[in-house]
Amino acid sequence: MLLSGKRHNMLAFLGGTGPEGKGLALRFALAGEEVVIGSRDGNRARETAEALQELAPGAAISGDENSVAAQRGDTVFIAVPYVGQKPLLEQVEEHLTAKVVVDVVAPLAVTKGRARAVTVEDGSAAMEAQQILPDSYVVAAFHNISAAELVIPHKVVDGDVVVCSDHQEPKELVMGLVRKIKDLRPVDGDGLENAKYVEQLTALLLNINRIYKAHSMIKIVGV
Amino acid sequence: MLLSGKRHNMLAFLGGTGPEGKGLALRFALAGEEVVIGSRDGNRARETAEALQELAPGAAISGDENSVAAQRGDTVFIAVPYVGQKPLLEQVEEHLTAKVVVDVVAPLAVTKGRARAVTVEDGSAAMEAQQILPDSYVVAAFHNISAAELVIPHKVVDGDVVVCSDHQEPKELVMGLVRKIKDLRPVDGDGLENAKYVEQLTALLLNINRIYKAHSMIKIVGV
Repeated sequence: MLLSGKRHNMLAFLGGTGPEGKGLALRFALAGEEVVIGSRDGNRARETAEALQELAPGAAISGDENSVAAQRGDTVFIAVPYVGQKPLLEQVEEHLTAKVVVDVVAPLAVTKGRARAVTVEDGSAAMEAQQILPDSYVVAAFHNISAAELVIPHKVVDGDVVVCSDHQEPKELVMGLVRKIKDLRPVDGDGLENAKYVEQLTALLLNINRIYKAHSMIKIVGV
Repeated sequence: MLLSGKRHNMLAFLGGTGPEGKGLALRFALAGEEVVIGSRDGNRARETAEALQELAPGAAISGDENSVAAQRGDTVFIAVPYVGQKPLLEQVEEHLTAKVVVDVVAPLAVTKGRARAVTVEDGSAAMEAQQILPDSYVVAAFHNISAAELVIPHKVVDGDVVVCSDHQEPKELVMGLVRKIKDLRPVDGDGLENAKYVEQLTALLLNINRIYKAHSMIKIVGV
């Protein structure tokens, strides 16, 4: 497969000015990865990149408009709100061919402070992404990792990342990326069919956060 | 509310001859609770009670037909396969009035070794149970705890039990019951609306079990 023997691995974070994308970009930059922040607004992306650069001196962080970031990335993270996923993917589709696309999107709605998972016709945001991008390797991951914790450099983020994909080698590549962030552990979540449960779990964790005034994450025990 | 000051607390396990009900009944019996196993077939219930009694000498375990068990229980666990839940609840409804009903049911289907959550019109098995039993206090709990581990006496079962209900005092009662089983910890999962995520998560855990040849459970970290 195309991925084998690939040395360079630029990580692009589309929607990387939002909390989850920003937090992940920071952690990967701190881990020594080259990172590009994407945004609809190139200037906002560059501002975020500069702000992250201050938190991670010596790291390689740049910012650009989403389609340029998609082009530059070898592995491309999708970290927009669900409502923005489809338009974004349709816009950048041509730049994602034969690339690993990491879908971080959890389709949620919040009413009176309570989160709930919204129904997605294709089953999950990740399944929908794979439908839109038949020539990309979609991998669902990182939904349950607290953005609020990621964005504080060197704060211990001690959770498990369930990784789901229908493509084995891309799934293993992303599991390897998870291991680059200290204290995170990847758990093989089998096929993309399972991404639904991981995405929806985010709603439960947000509701638990409200009760406990905490930033909860999960661990899978017994594996 | 009715529950306050209640001293006696007989636990009934309808569908208690199945793996999850049997495992929970055993653990509660070992914790000193009085337990009655219910089954469609009263003789099978009594056989299971006798088998559990051998694993928990000195414990108070009996068996009876589901409707008798429902009548005897102060707190009644529903541990049947989802397909059997509605007929069972309609059969025993009159015996569940003003009682705490602990719904353990995860609506699942298994195809070619892979589990998936089946869609429930009311949102979840627990929401459906509350619809059928408007005069009972439905609490969803214990879905993610491995039956295979529960049923081995004294084996450490080190997981979290997310407990969801729209009734605060019954929810706290069930959280207290969770604490009676060594190493299990209750986590307040807010309203019954969230039971959906906990029920569906069972499918993910079963698929993870298949990959890792393990009995996985979850922990909520950060709370």
